Amino acid sequence: MPALSLEALQNLATQALIAAGAAPAAAIDTALALVAADAAGLASHGVSRIPLYAAHLRHGRVDGQAIPRVIRSSGAVRVIDAGDGLAYPACRLAVGEAIAVARLQGIGLASVVRSNHFGAAAHHLEAVAEAGLVGLALGNSPAAIAPWGGKTPLFGTNPIAAIFPRRAAAPLVIDLSLSEVARGKLLVAAQNKQAIPPTWALAPDGTPTTDPELGLQGSMLPAGGVKGAMLALWVELLIGAVAGAAFAFEADSFFSETGNKAAIGQLFLVINPAALSGSDSYAERLEVLLAAMSADAGVRLPGCRRDANRARAERDGIELPEKLLRQLQQLAAAQ
Amino acid sequence: MPALSLEALQNLATQALIAAGAAPAAAIDTALALVAADAAGLASHGVSRIPLYAAHLRHGRVDGQAIPRVIRSSGAVRVIDAGDGLAYPACRLAVGEAIAVARLQGIGLASVVRSNHFGAAAHHLEAVAEAGLVGLALGNSPAAIAPWGGKTPLFGTNPIAAIFPRRAAAPLVIDLSLSEVARGKLLVAAQNKQAIPPTWALAPDGTPTTDPELGLQGSMLPAGGVKGAMLALWVELLIGAVAGAAFAFEADSFFSETGNKAAIGQLFLVINPAALSGSDSYAERLEVLLAAMSADAGVRLPGCRRDANRARAERDGIELPEKLLRQLQQLAAAQ
Repeated sequence: MPALSLEALQNLATQALIAAGAAPAAAIDTALALVAADAAGLASHGVSRIPLYAAHLRHGRVDGQAIPRVIRSSGAVRVIDAGDGLAYPACRLAVGEAIAVARLQGIGLASVVRSNHFGAAAHHLEAVAEAGLVGLALGNSPAAIAPWGGKTPLFGTNPIAAIFPRRAAAPLVIDLSLSEVARGKLLVAAQNKQAIPPTWALAPDGTPTTDPELGLQGSMLPAGGVKGAMLALWVELLIGAVAGAAFAFEADSFFSETGNKAAIGQLFLVINPAALSGSDSYAERLEVLLAAMSADAGVRLPGCRRDANRARAERDGIELPEKLLRQLQQLAAAQ
Repeated sequence: MPALSLEALQNLATQALIAAGAAPAAAIDTALALVAADAAGLASHGVSRIPLYAAHLRHGRVDGQAIPRVIRSSGAVRVIDAGDGLAYPACRLAVGEAIAVARLQGIGLASVVRSNHFGAAAHHLEAVAEAGLVGLALGNSPAAIAPWGGKTPLFGTNPIAAIFPRRAAAPLVIDLSLSEVARGKLLVAAQNKQAIPPTWALAPDGTPTTDPELGLQGSMLPAGGVKGAMLALWVELLIGAVAGAAFAFEADSFFSETGNKAAIGQLFLVINPAALSGSDSYAERLEVLLAAMSADAGVRLPGCRRDANRARAERDGIELPEKLLRQLQQLAAAQ
C-alpha cells in the first residue's frame, strides 16, 4: 500500500470530485474533510467514499454546482439550503454562521436542509473549538434502524458529535452513531461468511439474527437498545420535523449509485461558555473532570486515538489500498 | 394500598415538604412534579422521594427557603441560581425563561446551577410543549457510571429528555437515563438475593459482576457501552464545565440523608420550529414520521404508557404502599 502525503491525497481527491462534476470550492471542502477522516483513522468516512460521491454527482443525485445559501435568519437561528449539493460547503457555512451568532447571543443554531452525506460529524466542529466555543453536531442518514419493537428501518444511524476546546491540548471530541455497530461490520462478516452476534441486527421479520446477509436485508439494532432507538428518533424529529429536511426513510441509500436526492439534514449548535460559567471557569472545570478521568488507569479520553492517528498521518502520510488509489487516479483523469 | 386522588396526594406531599422546612411555593412546585411522576407510573421519581427530600431539608443539604434567581442574562442564554434549594422552582423559572427567549430568538438556553435532584426530566418540559415549542432537558446526578475502561464512578446517570408538541395529541416525550438499568433494579435484586446480568454493573475492581451487592459498591454500566459513557461525559461537561454546576463526582449521593450540598445542574434548550421549518410544516412533518412508526405493528410511541398511566391516575387516583403513606402523613404532621 503506497503512502501519500495529506496534501497529495487532498489534491487527488479534489481532482476526482471536480472531474465528476463538483465545483472547485465544493470539491476542496469535501476533499479536506475526507482526507481528515482518513488521517484520523476513520477510513470508512474518508476518500473511500469518493467513488460513490462521483457516481452520485454523475447520476444527478448530488448537484456539484450547488452553492449553499442562508435562506432564513431569525434571532439566534440560521437555516442553510445546501441545494442538494455536497454537504461539506453547506456545513462549513452553517458552522460559521452558528459561531458568529453564538459570539453575540451566547448560543447559535444552524440547520442544513437539502443536504447529503456529511462524513465524520465531528470534523465540522473543529472551527467551533478553534473559536473557543463548544459545539454539537447532529445529522440523519438513510434509514438503517427500526423503531423499538418494529422491523422496518425508519431512522438513520444518526451521528451525535460534540467538541469541547481545551487550553493546552487538542479539543475533546465525542463522536458516535446510534447503531450498535456500523453497517460495515456486517458487510465484512458477510464477505467472510462469519456469524454476527445477535445484538447487532434484526432479520427482515424483526427477529435478532446471527446471519449478516439477513441483517443487511433487515435493520441495524440501536446502541443501548430502546435508549439508542429513542435518541435516533430525537435526531430524526429535530432534523426532519424541526429543521425540515428529509427523514431517513425518505432518502435512498448512499451505498447505491442511483436513487433520489437524499435531501437529509444536519444541525449544529454552538454554545459560548463565556455566556454561562465564563471562559476561564469553563477551561479550568473541564480539566478538573478530565484529570479525574485520567487518574483511573484504564481510561482513555475520547478522541485520543484519532489525535494519535492524525499526528502519524501528518508525518508518514496515508496508506491507501492499491485498488482504491487506482480508482481515484482513474476518476481524477476522467473528463 | 389505599388510593388517593391526585389533589389529595399533592396536598399531603406539599404539607410534608413544608413541615420539613420548604417554603410553600417551593413545596407546591416539588409536590406537583412528584405526584405527576407517580401519575405517569414513575414511582421511583414520585412521592417516594419525599422522606429523603425531607431529610435533606432538615440536615441543611437543601435550603428550603432558597428563591431561584436569574444571575446571568446574555443574548439567548440565561443562568439560574437555584441557591441550593429544591430543584423544581428553579427548573420552572429556567424553562419559563428559555421559552420566552426562544419565542424572540428562535432558540433559548437556560442553565440551573447550585441545584438538586430534579426528578423526571421530561416533566419540566411540559410547559415547552404547551407553548408549541420543542425542548431538551439535560441534568447530571451524583456519580454512578465509570468512564469507559475505568472503575471509579465519575458520571451521573445523567438523564436526557426531549418533548415535541403535537397538534391533536399529547406531546411526544423522550426520556432516558444513560445507565443500562436504573440503580433501583440492583437494590431490588440485592433484597431478593438474586443474580443480575453481567451487563448491568461493574464490581469495585472494574470487572462485570452478577452480584448486585458488588454492583452497588462498584459502578453502573452505561447504556450502549462506550456510547452511553460518551453521552454521559457530554452531559457532565455541559453541566459542570459550560454551565458551571458541580460535576457528578463532586456531589454526595441523594440516597444518603446526610452529605454535602449537591450543587449539580440542569440545562434546558428550547427551539421554536417557527424559526426553522415553520410551525405548520413542523406539525405536519412530525405526524408523517409518527404515522410511519405506527404502521409497524410492534411499535409503540415513546411516552404512550405514561399517557395511559396518567389518564388512569386522574380517574382512579394513586395507590401508595401503606408504609410510604404513613411516612408522608407523619412528616406532614410534624412541626
